[in-house]
Amino acid sequence: MPETLKYTLSEERIPRRWYNIAADLPVPLPPPLHPGTGQPLGPDDLAPLFPMELIGQEVTQEREIDIPEPVRDIYRMWRPTPVYRARGLERALGTSARIFYKYEGVSPAGSHKPNTAVAQAYYNKAAGITKLSTETGAGQWGSSLAFAGALFGLEVKVYMVKVSYQQKPYRRALMETYGATCVASPSNETECGRAILAATPDSPGSLGMAISEAVEVAAKNADTKYALGSVLNHVLLHQTVIGIEAIEQMEEADAWPDVVIGCAGGGSNFAGLAFPFLGRKLRDGSNLRVIAAEPAACPTLTRGRYAYDFGDTSHLTPLVKMHTLGSTFMPPGFHAGGLRYHGMAPLVSHIKELGLIEAQAFRQVACFEAGVTFARAEGIVPAPESTHAIRCAIDEALRAKQAGTTPTILFGLSGHGHFDMQAYTDYFAGKLEDRDYDDAALQRALGDLPQVAA
Amino acid sequence: MPETLKYTLSEERIPRRWYNIAADLPVPLPPPLHPGTGQPLGPDDLAPLFPMELIGQEVTQEREIDIPEPVRDIYRMWRPTPVYRARGLERALGTSARIFYKYEGVSPAGSHKPNTAVAQAYYNKAAGITKLSTETGAGQWGSSLAFAGALFGLEVKVYMVKVSYQQKPYRRALMETYGATCVASPSNETECGRAILAATPDSPGSLGMAISEAVEVAAKNADTKYALGSVLNHVLLHQTVIGIEAIEQMEEADAWPDVVIGCAGGGSNFAGLAFPFLGRKLRDGSNLRVIAAEPAACPTLTRGRYAYDFGDTSHLTPLVKMHTLGSTFMPPGFHAGGLRYHGMAPLVSHIKELGLIEAQAFRQVACFEAGVTFARAEGIVPAPESTHAIRCAIDEALRAKQAGTTPTILFGLSGHGHFDMQAYTDYFAGKLEDRDYDDAALQRALGDLPQVAA
Repeated sequence: MPETLKYTLSEERIPRRWYNIAADLPVPLPPPLHPGTGQPLGPDDLAPLFPMELIGQEVTQEREIDIPEPVRDIYRMWRPTPVYRARGLERALGTSARIFYKYEGVSPAGSHKPNTAVAQAYYNKAAGITKLSTETGAGQWGSSLAFAGALFGLEVKVYMVKVSYQQKPYRRALMETYGATCVASPSNETECGRAILAATPDSPGSLGMAISEAVEVAAKNADTKYALGSVLNHVLLHQTVIGIEAIEQMEEADAWPDVVIGCAGGGSNFAGLAFPFLGRKLRDGSNLRVIAAEPAACPTLTRGRYAYDFGDTSHLTPLVKMHTLGSTFMPPGFHAGGLRYHGMAPLVSHIKELGLIEAQAFRQVACFEAGVTFARAEGIVPAPESTHAIRCAIDEALRAKQAGTTPTILFGLSGHGHFDMQAYTDYFAGKLEDRDYDDAALQRALGDLPQVAA
Repeated sequence: MPETLKYTLSEERIPRRWYNIAADLPVPLPPPLHPGTGQPLGPDDLAPLFPMELIGQEVTQEREIDIPEPVRDIYRMWRPTPVYRARGLERALGTSARIFYKYEGVSPAGSHKPNTAVAQAYYNKAAGITKLSTETGAGQWGSSLAFAGALFGLEVKVYMVKVSYQQKPYRRALMETYGATCVASPSNETECGRAILAATPDSPGSLGMAISEAVEVAAKNADTKYALGSVLNHVLLHQTVIGIEAIEQMEEADAWPDVVIGCAGGGSNFAGLAFPFLGRKLRDGSNLRVIAAEPAACPTLTRGRYAYDFGDTSHLTPLVKMHTLGSTFMPPGFHAGGLRYHGMAPLVSHIKELGLIEAQAFRQVACFEAGVTFARAEGIVPAPESTHAIRCAIDEALRAKQAGTTPTILFGLSGHGHFDMQAYTDYFAGKLEDRDYDDAALQRALGDLPQVAA
């Protein structure tokens, strides 16, 4: 038998605790602020939107948080997820680097998102909630929450960015198969939606707008809470099962990574893989590089400002300190809809400011090229979001080849691209473009950032 | 921790040998015949289409055939596949039955088909072949051979049934992502295709027609061989890795099945799961029931005739003895395109005639209903083909509930439905119909069966 290809773990080795990087940070995370008062938020401010357990997880400084057994029980449907040695890709590149990837596409909804969807559904169910509202861009998050809702008997309402709703009818069908309701955002079901439609009737929608609608519905209905698929601390926390497992798998492979790479939109996939490794580094001072790979058309970490901003377009959310392109910034359309968000998770932004991670931006045509190379070598067709991590990993591996070095690279393959084949069709037809963002619009959006005394 | 949910096996437990049920049959399989002479085929008759190793596997009586290490090496990308205890489905049905399923959708192409695609690509590559031609209905087989071709550096040309080609652009995109070429069949690239188009310019195509085109291309080009995704003995042989693993997993679960169920189109998925269990039964006389679940709109096993027939429409293939609706029979359109074939694998047919298995036919609306129940309970959206096995398993479980019995049911979940979401969309929109086949046309097709002296 040749060298091991797939590092699996048995069910018993599903993590028992999530890892909270806040406990290991040299400088604490700036708190979220109330937009009216400019004062740090208290738990009661968030109570209309989230159950108390999740609010507690948002602010805790405990290093480890127990994963409830019913959540672990469901994780067993697809966890532990495999780590692969990318031998096919290594051969295709002729690289001297060793490449590994942690594959989250084996989940029922096809990405890492169910890791937190199941946890959020569990805590809401335990708090007596019967309905959840949420937004979705590419549809990965909406279908994951729909899946989790089906398991816990919760009604799920998804506001889907209109352009995705129209381009991805099959993502919608997936949500409906799981029993959720899906509407195009902006919709006329909410005040926010109606206001946006009145101003721009043909708005293609954005994640910021869809968040506004979902938050409004939760704020106005006592039986409904809101569920967010990224950005918040508790979401990133739930995703750390990825990195905790990966550490065990890389140890089994006797291949501690020199570089860890994840694609970053809101930041939860990136953080889920990277934070447990970073925590190790923070505690033992090892020499790990960590890279967040983001889209050049929505370059939050590489071109955004680190400032307090709203998480949504209609300014219903608290203010959080993050890398932002401005909540009114409208990125151009591109196929990695899951990375098309104006902000970045506060924890990821903070850690970037502390110099603990790097960020690189990639253009979509180069990303799809990497995705096709990967599919032909490894068999898995990656989600457009994930191709950013692949592009970054391939570039690292090719640099290693030139330099004659032998680094060990680990990247996160956050999901499969089965619901994104139109993008591949466009790529093969030569119809895929690298559209730049409008820099004047970006400067305007940054000029509109809220004024915060802090 | 609750009772185990997912039975996985380590890489080392990927089977080392395929299982050949021919060695255990009480009556030998009737041989394929040359259509011109009516005499049993010799290896040379098949040499234009297949490499000698596969021809040998077609006729061998050895019980076990070694799996080449390079094939096992690739199997490791997704094998062993998991067996799940369907606890969510059991709860949803309130049944006293224990339900298990073997899930083949974890393969890169999303179904069981790569088990044989990889083996066929390997043997062709080893024989110096550079190009493969094949047909595909729903696209599961075409994308699997495209995947295998990418790994071995073989050019793959896929003739895709025209109605599927039009309805499933994303399956096509998947094949292209793996580097294959895909054309709608009937095409004007072959004599067969041109003849069919001349007679019926708007023909929606059929598997029988697409087979004719692919066979013609292989027969006429020395560098090209033909690859079939089901029906033939060597294809069923390669699929037995499914059942061999499942036996180990059911033993681990301490739950020997009372009933084993698989959906059956050409028969390879069904045989792959069932034959290793049947072999046990043949050797030790245990009391296992085995059920082939087929579509009511193309009811080969339940309404076909057991007779010698052609495998394709243009009569380029040998004659094989099988349950057939007649090679000129055109089944109505339905969504399980992978089950829309006029014949059944000779081995499956023979075993049915010997009374070793049962067959049941199911209508598609009831199958989709079962598929949605399954998706909401188990998280996995099944392929339309697989919903036939789910429907059959659910019916068995509900009968057990009524009878107060506690059978152990194992069914094969042959693939996911990620590329079949239009079918689910139609189902939810109430647009899915149960179309009956045309009985007069069936009788005509049966009347056209070739006359064979035997």
